[in-house]
Amino acid sequence: MPQTLKTLGPKAAADLDGDLMSDAGGFSIDQLMELAGLSVSQAVYNVHPPSAGNNGGDGLVAARHLYFYGYTPVVYYPKPTKKPIYDGLVKQLNNLHIRFDNETPFDKLAGESDLIVDALFGFSFQPPVREPFDQAIAVMEKGVKPVLAVDTPSSWHVEDGPQNEGLGSKYMPDYLISLTAAKPNVGHFKGKKHFIGGRFLGEDVAKKYNLNIPEYKGLDQIVEVPVDVKVEKL
Amino acid sequence: MPQTLKTLGPKAAADLDGDLMSDAGGFSIDQLMELAGLSVSQAVYNVHPPSAGNNGGDGLVAARHLYFYGYTPVVYYPKPTKKPIYDGLVKQLNNLHIRFDNETPFDKLAGESDLIVDALFGFSFQPPVREPFDQAIAVMEKGVKPVLAVDTPSSWHVEDGPQNEGLGSKYMPDYLISLTAAKPNVGHFKGKKHFIGGRFLGEDVAKKYNLNIPEYKGLDQIVEVPVDVKVEKL
Repeated sequence: MPQTLKTLGPKAAADLDGDLMSDAGGFSIDQLMELAGLSVSQAVYNVHPPSAGNNGGDGLVAARHLYFYGYTPVVYYPKPTKKPIYDGLVKQLNNLHIRFDNETPFDKLAGESDLIVDALFGFSFQPPVREPFDQAIAVMEKGVKPVLAVDTPSSWHVEDGPQNEGLGSKYMPDYLISLTAAKPNVGHFKGKKHFIGGRFLGEDVAKKYNLNIPEYKGLDQIVEVPVDVKVEKL
Repeated sequence: MPQTLKTLGPKAAADLDGDLMSDAGGFSIDQLMELAGLSVSQAVYNVHPPSAGNNGGDGLVAARHLYFYGYTPVVYYPKPTKKPIYDGLVKQLNNLHIRFDNETPFDKLAGESDLIVDALFGFSFQPPVREPFDQAIAVMEKGVKPVLAVDTPSSWHVEDGPQNEGLGSKYMPDYLISLTAAKPNVGHFKGKKHFIGGRFLGEDVAKKYNLNIPEYKGLDQIVEVPVDVKVEKL
């Protein structure tokens, strides 16, 4: 691994996604989500070998892969995104009879689970946390069950990390997976394990964004990086 | 693994793909190709730990993953499919500076490679083999280098296997990866290893097509099945 963990701010991260999905980059949103969700599922498998989940598109893909790894994921998805790709992901899960549950109080759901995958909000989140997500943030903040946060812990500011006060200000997930590149708030992450996923980023793109490509091993779609690595904001 | 390897004929295989991509199945072609190519790349890694490749869409995805595993794939793609998803896959490879070579004689290309991934034709192939593919089939038939065939060895009939006479009649790849489900011609496969990829097929679909779902291990997207397994044509 590089000595220094370079992070991408919101503009650069959005630009990079735009490059990948541009006419020149050639990736479709379907492909990128499939790859991201696969990385998330591998991170879950790493921190919690088979026996719960929540989120956005990456999380829905991860839930599918996790099902096939032998997990029994439960999906909390109270505000479905209205786009064909999301509809498709939901159908894929329905066809596997994977349980969606937006009715059971989140603390009860969490109590029945072994691990929570937090893919509620990404790095472009703007406060405040609205209902019904406040309930979920409060439960994750309590730390009742270990949480793997996807890309950015939900409710965190992309640069400044946890909110200064109130709901979410003490939210610290146990595990984090950064997708494509770490975001600047990773400097606030004091959990147990940090992974990076994005084994499709070429040297040209890495150079353009001044990123280091981590050294993935074997067939892995994720790589673990030290939690105490020095962070460089780009 | 199941005692008997059930295989899907061309109609059922096409119907299954149609189901997966139907409004009810929810998968996009982008997702299925991503998953298929990932399986292919894992099969390559299995039979030939890092140090070459050829094909269609699944093969293009596999070439990308293989690059990231540390391989130096060379892509033979003389008749590009004119569809946006294929254009995107090619751009992804171009951005990684992966070599496309349709000019070098195929026997020379093969001579410089350690393994050939055959993803030229699928199970819907209809003879005869046209130029310039005849050259490639002839080289693979000679067995100069080991070949991993994707889903159906190119030029084989979906039921009857190798052509009765002439070009391709003696073509027997060393390795085969069946995608989603084995095709009936697998009964003619006498190579060293047979893999199945398709860890996204649910029990409902498997039941509808009367398939057994193989027992994948850990994070694997492929499973190896005995070459001498009894074959049941569905």
